[in-house]
Amino acid sequence: MKSGFFHTPYNLPKRTARQVFDWSLQLAQHCDQVGFTDFMIGEHSTLAWENIPCPEIVIGAAAAVTRNIRFAPMAHLLPYHHPATLATQVGWLSQVLEGRYFLGVAPGGHHTDAILHGFEGIGPLQEQMFESLDLIEKVWARKPFLEKGKFFQAGYPGPNDMPGYQVVLADNGPWGGRDNLEVAVTGLTKNSSSLKWAGERNYSPISFFGGTEVMKSHWDTWEAAAQSKGFHADRARFRVTRDIFIADTDAEAKRRAMASGLGDAWREYLFPIYKKFNLFDGIIKDSGKDIDASQVDMDFLAEHVWLCGSPETVIRKLERVAEKTGGWGQIVVNSHDNIDNPQPYFESLERLAKEVAPKLNLL
Amino acid sequence: MKSGFFHTPYNLPKRTARQVFDWSLQLAQHCDQVGFTDFMIGEHSTLAWENIPCPEIVIGAAAAVTRNIRFAPMAHLLPYHHPATLATQVGWLSQVLEGRYFLGVAPGGHHTDAILHGFEGIGPLQEQMFESLDLIEKVWARKPFLEKGKFFQAGYPGPNDMPGYQVVLADNGPWGGRDNLEVAVTGLTKNSSSLKWAGERNYSPISFFGGTEVMKSHWDTWEAAAQSKGFHADRARFRVTRDIFIADTDAEAKRRAMASGLGDAWREYLFPIYKKFNLFDGIIKDSGKDIDASQVDMDFLAEHVWLCGSPETVIRKLERVAEKTGGWGQIVVNSHDNIDNPQPYFESLERLAKEVAPKLNLL
Repeated sequence: MKSGFFHTPYNLPKRTARQVFDWSLQLAQHCDQVGFTDFMIGEHSTLAWENIPCPEIVIGAAAAVTRNIRFAPMAHLLPYHHPATLATQVGWLSQVLEGRYFLGVAPGGHHTDAILHGFEGIGPLQEQMFESLDLIEKVWARKPFLEKGKFFQAGYPGPNDMPGYQVVLADNGPWGGRDNLEVAVTGLTKNSSSLKWAGERNYSPISFFGGTEVMKSHWDTWEAAAQSKGFHADRARFRVTRDIFIADTDAEAKRRAMASGLGDAWREYLFPIYKKFNLFDGIIKDSGKDIDASQVDMDFLAEHVWLCGSPETVIRKLERVAEKTGGWGQIVVNSHDNIDNPQPYFESLERLAKEVAPKLNLL
Repeated sequence: MKSGFFHTPYNLPKRTARQVFDWSLQLAQHCDQVGFTDFMIGEHSTLAWENIPCPEIVIGAAAAVTRNIRFAPMAHLLPYHHPATLATQVGWLSQVLEGRYFLGVAPGGHHTDAILHGFEGIGPLQEQMFESLDLIEKVWARKPFLEKGKFFQAGYPGPNDMPGYQVVLADNGPWGGRDNLEVAVTGLTKNSSSLKWAGERNYSPISFFGGTEVMKSHWDTWEAAAQSKGFHADRARFRVTRDIFIADTDAEAKRRAMASGLGDAWREYLFPIYKKFNLFDGIIKDSGKDIDASQVDMDFLAEHVWLCGSPETVIRKLERVAEKTGGWGQIVVNSHDNIDNPQPYFESLERLAKEVAPKLNLL
């Protein structure tokens, strides 16, 4: 199994932009050195707890200080960008990284981000995303066109569009050509409509974990959609995100997790979001406990929400998930703010990449 | 006098994106080390000779490897961006750089870039830029609003826009507040309309050199516009760009310049552009030669277009320009592709920053 890293990021709101930036580069270098395959970075413009508005800038900075790891914005929120500008940025950046790049796309799911971009809410975003995607694909095709859509416009210059002096057109398409660019989409809820259109377009699926039933639904939805369009639905492309903390023993892992940025983020930020979007329901069901979301506490998190323990325990827990859901190809660990005490966290990441993932084959 | 660097860039079309990226970082580090004040990077999406579509990505990468030098996109082409996304990117990046940042804005002047972004030509761009600027300023003000303009929309969330879970809003405004952000605008032609509105908004002027008459017009236009709105028109804010090559002797500087990327760019790329936009006219007039643009050759360039020579010669030439135009605060050298032989070029840059600029006070 491969290891991935999901840098939402969850950072304490008190951090400065420079602190988050430097921490992001430190994480990218560590993940690269210990053998992670992928490093994904979220895009949010109004959330102090998740404040990287420009993942492409962090990715560019990390290009110069990493060797093997692949990067992705996860995801660029298409209604918030000019499609031709984004198509060019993605292509050029994938070239700067000489292919160590893939692309996440999404409509945007946060109300305050939508307002910042002049929307009254997130309702209209998906339709805009689809139009944007179509125009982005056309820009990448590098054939002359000029199109004014309902929301966006884009084009590509042809031989009759030269301005009277010599123009050698730059090739800012994806590294190795469009077919060489992996596009990925995240799914949150059961029967995710995002994963349905991801499958139909042959974009890879990423499951935000919300219990085995939701996870199974993510795969089933994507697989059916991919097959409906004649694409091969390969489980190796299925990525699953989790909160993970590893140490020598289960007790030490739990103690360290509680005291780390993982504990901080849940205590101070994630509880209300998980309750709002009913994200505990599937996990409570898996646990067999007779409680509701209001009764979820830190001990429950450490036992049932996080994958917390010795390498052996984490391996066993992941194998148990696979028995219920079928397998997947990459275990993706969520990022947390350990700026003040990075060592136990870096150790946990290293053990995931070296002592857990390589021992698993869940395909 | 201060020294600035203008990284259009002019790179040979054969260069890969990664080569241009690495070369840009190498230049930024060198300019930082030898004492340049500012490093400006162009934004072009279709031009193989000027292929950095995302200056912000290079600036972010350079943030981590430089200490004192300030960076600017020169310029972000506002019709090609979502104004709220750009406002956030600019603010956040200025924070990452802890203030070592200023902002260039422009409507976009290249026909093929306009087509890529779905325009039939550059005609409609200026009107879109003005609307974008207004929305960007409103986003930076961080007061609740929601506005759908003729071309763009943007907003800012207020206390009634919270989505049902805790949102701590990120402050992605400019480092130190809006008033702390320098905005700059470049002028190319006589009586530049760009420099007129720059003056009216208190944005700094940058003159692309096209002879002393044009340069004087740039200052006069900007000064009159600034004063018409009650702003103090300080010549220290006036930047002038030139092609410069410095070596021990005038003969050696000319020999090196001809053999460098400066010579390549003029021979292979800039001649037709300068002819198309009549950019030689003012320089021919200054030279006192009875020739027309078609007769301009490399020797004329080295003598009259470039500032080429020993440090003493370059100082004398700059003083002569100042006698005719009035003074200015920063001499900005254009970037050229010296990837294959950087040493004579790096020496020239170092001598500009250490042996020429500090000896000049043209205010």
